[in-house]
Amino acid sequence: MTEHHRGERHALVVGVPPERREEYLDLHRHMWPQVEQMLRAANVRNYSIFIAGDTLLAYYEYIGDDHTADMRRIAADPVTREWWRHTDPCQVRIVEEREPEALWQLIDEVWHLP
Amino acid sequence: MTEHHRGERHALVVGVPPERREEYLDLHRHMWPQVEQMLRAANVRNYSIFIAGDTLLAYYEYIGDDHTADMRRIAADPVTREWWRHTDPCQVRIVEEREPEALWQLIDEVWHLP
Repeated sequence: MTEHHRGERHALVVGVPPERREEYLDLHRHMWPQVEQMLRAANVRNYSIFIAGDTLLAYYEYIGDDHTADMRRIAADPVTREWWRHTDPCQVRIVEEREPEALWQLIDEVWHLP
Repeated sequence: MTEHHRGERHALVVGVPPERREEYLDLHRHMWPQVEQMLRAANVRNYSIFIAGDTLLAYYEYIGDDHTADMRRIAADPVTREWWRHTDPCQVRIVEEREPEALWQLIDEVWHLP
């Protein structure tokens, strides 16, 4: 088990409307391989989405050196955009907006133990 | 950047009463080294706590082979128990109880990308 640097940690939250919860879960049971490939090509690793009630929590590690540019590449990918056309209606912003027009909003790290 | 197996992923949530939020953050700015050492001795790695409004999110990876026993070791550690005497009043259960008497409750993983 290596423990050297594994990238920048990012955590985000978004809500799921109760009537869309099952649809969201089902979409992720059949995640599109091309969406996953795009994420990895954009230097995203160890990405998990968790659910607590009607709240979704995302955690990932970014191993590249230009997060903004890589996120733009993801957002420009036609397959990812089509995937989002399915997932967007399942998501609603639940915390104060930091990134305009984004549903998922970044949250702060309080503490970390390597 | 290695990508082999990094342990079982665990995510938990708990609430923080608004009037205790600053106290909780301040405690973690000065986390006790012995508490961190106990966690690592109990095979916990890559542990982060994030905050979104009045919700705390914990994520860690467990590299041992008996999570229940290791969690019991942590819970029996006098320094950790003293630390919890400070943090417990800053925490309130916010999701359906799965583990009786615990404030932090485990949440489900929806999807994971290595």
